[in-house]
Amino acid sequence: MDYGDGLFETLLVVDGHVPLRSFHFDRLQSGLASLHFPDVHDAVSRQLDEAVAALSSDGNYSVRITVTRGGGPRGYAPPATARPRIILSAAAMPRDPAIMAEPAIVGVSTCRWGKQPALAGVKHLNRLEQVLAAMERENAGWDEALMLDQAGAPISVTSGNLFCVSGQTLLTPILEDCGIDGTRRRFFIERCAVDLDLVVREVPLSIEDLKTADEVFYCNSLIGLRPVGELDGVRMGEPVVCARLFERYCKELTL
Amino acid sequence: MDYGDGLFETLLVVDGHVPLRSFHFDRLQSGLASLHFPDVHDAVSRQLDEAVAALSSDGNYSVRITVTRGGGPRGYAPPATARPRIILSAAAMPRDPAIMAEPAIVGVSTCRWGKQPALAGVKHLNRLEQVLAAMERENAGWDEALMLDQAGAPISVTSGNLFCVSGQTLLTPILEDCGIDGTRRRFFIERCAVDLDLVVREVPLSIEDLKTADEVFYCNSLIGLRPVGELDGVRMGEPVVCARLFERYCKELTL
Repeated sequence: MDYGDGLFETLLVVDGHVPLRSFHFDRLQSGLASLHFPDVHDAVSRQLDEAVAALSSDGNYSVRITVTRGGGPRGYAPPATARPRIILSAAAMPRDPAIMAEPAIVGVSTCRWGKQPALAGVKHLNRLEQVLAAMERENAGWDEALMLDQAGAPISVTSGNLFCVSGQTLLTPILEDCGIDGTRRRFFIERCAVDLDLVVREVPLSIEDLKTADEVFYCNSLIGLRPVGELDGVRMGEPVVCARLFERYCKELTL
Repeated sequence: MDYGDGLFETLLVVDGHVPLRSFHFDRLQSGLASLHFPDVHDAVSRQLDEAVAALSSDGNYSVRITVTRGGGPRGYAPPATARPRIILSAAAMPRDPAIMAEPAIVGVSTCRWGKQPALAGVKHLNRLEQVLAAMERENAGWDEALMLDQAGAPISVTSGNLFCVSGQTLLTPILEDCGIDGTRRRFFIERCAVDLDLVVREVPLSIEDLKTADEVFYCNSLIGLRPVGELDGVRMGEPVVCARLFERYCKELTL
C-alpha cells in the first residue's frame, strides 16, 4: 500500500515452534481493531501454520507477517471493498537464539518518536522514525540507537523495547504516546519478572535513570534480550540480572 | 517499501502544462533531504516530462510521483546500496479544474495529527492518520474531515490545507509540528494574497476561530480551492473572497 497502511509481526520460529505466539496474535488483533481492518486473525493464523510446517522442523527462522489494507483507488480512504493482503516471508536465523548477545554499544538518536496516542503500541507500517534512527545508528557504528519521545524521555531502541534494572526492580518506559508494545516486553513484564521475584513498573524514565541503573537491556522477538554495555559513552554494569532473565527466557523457546 | 519510507507528489496537468511545478519540486527536494535520500531531482523531472508528453496535450490529468527508498534486507536500516525507485502514474481528471467546487460539508475527525516536528510539512508516505480520518469522513458522509493537532488546534483536512478569511486577512495554521506543506497553500500565501491585497498570517487557530470567520476554505493541487459551506454543523458565510481567490488561481492554470 502507498501509505504504510498495515501491520506487521516478526516471529521467531524454533524447531517448528513459535514462542509467545499468542502475544503476537493479541497485538495483531489489537492493531487490526485500531486501524479498522476486517478481522483476518484466522486467515493469518492458518497461513502461519502452513508456513511453519513448510520450514525445517529443527532449525531457527524469522518469519515476517505483513497485513496491508489491500488495493484501492487514489486518495486516502480505502474502498469499502478493500480486502486485506496477508504476506508471509521467512529467513533462516543467522544466530542461535538461545545464546545471549554480547553487551551492545548504544548511542542516542537525534530522531525522536512522534507523539500519537491513537497509534501508540501498534506495530503498524508507518515506521519512518525508526528508519531514520536506524540510518543514524549505522552511520555511527552503534549496535543500537536509543529513541526518545518528544519530551526527551527514553522510549525504546530502533528495534526493541527498553528495560533497566535497579536492585530488585525492573523499570520500562510507559508507551502511552509512542513506541511499539513488544511481545518480549510483555513476556518480561507478565511472566519473567514474577518468576524471578522482580518487581516491574512501567514509568517515565530519563537518560540519567538509565545511566545510573544497575543494568540496562533491550528486547525483541529475534534476540530475546540483549544487555547494554555502553550507553551514550557511559559504561554500564555487568549483565547479572540480564543473564538470569535470559536464562528464564530461553525456557520459553523450548516450550 | 515496507515502512512507508518514501515521498510523493500529486500534480495537476492542464493541457500538457503542470501548474506550480516548481513548488512541487521544491517540496520534493526538501523531503529528499529530510529523509536522507540521494538527490533524484533530475531523474524525477525527466520522467515527469516524459509522462506529460505522453498524455493528450488538451486534457486534464492528475499525475502521482512516488519516490521510495528502494529494496533492502530485513530491518529498518536501508542498505548503503539502496537506490530510490521512482514511480509515476496518471489518471484523467473527472472534473474541470477551472470550475470551483460547491461549498463542502466538513466534520471534525476524532483522529488527530501526531506531533512530529522533524517530519512536519514533508509529503512522506507515513499517512496512517489521514487514512483513518478519511475513513471516518466516508462513514460520516462528509465532503472532508477537519484534522486537529494533539492540542486540538485545526491543522488541515485529510487532503488539503486550511485557510480562513477574516476581513482583509487570510489566516492559515502553522505547520511546525505536523501537517503537509501544500503547494496550493504556498501559492495562496506567496502569490495570490498579495495580488488580491490580502494580508496573510500563519497562526495557531482554534475551531472557534474557523466557525466565526467570514469564510473558510481548503486547498490542494487537484481542486485548487474549495469553500467550506458547513463546519461541524455551523453554516459558513458565502464564498465571496474564495471566488476571487479561485479566479486568481485559475489564471495560474493556464500560464
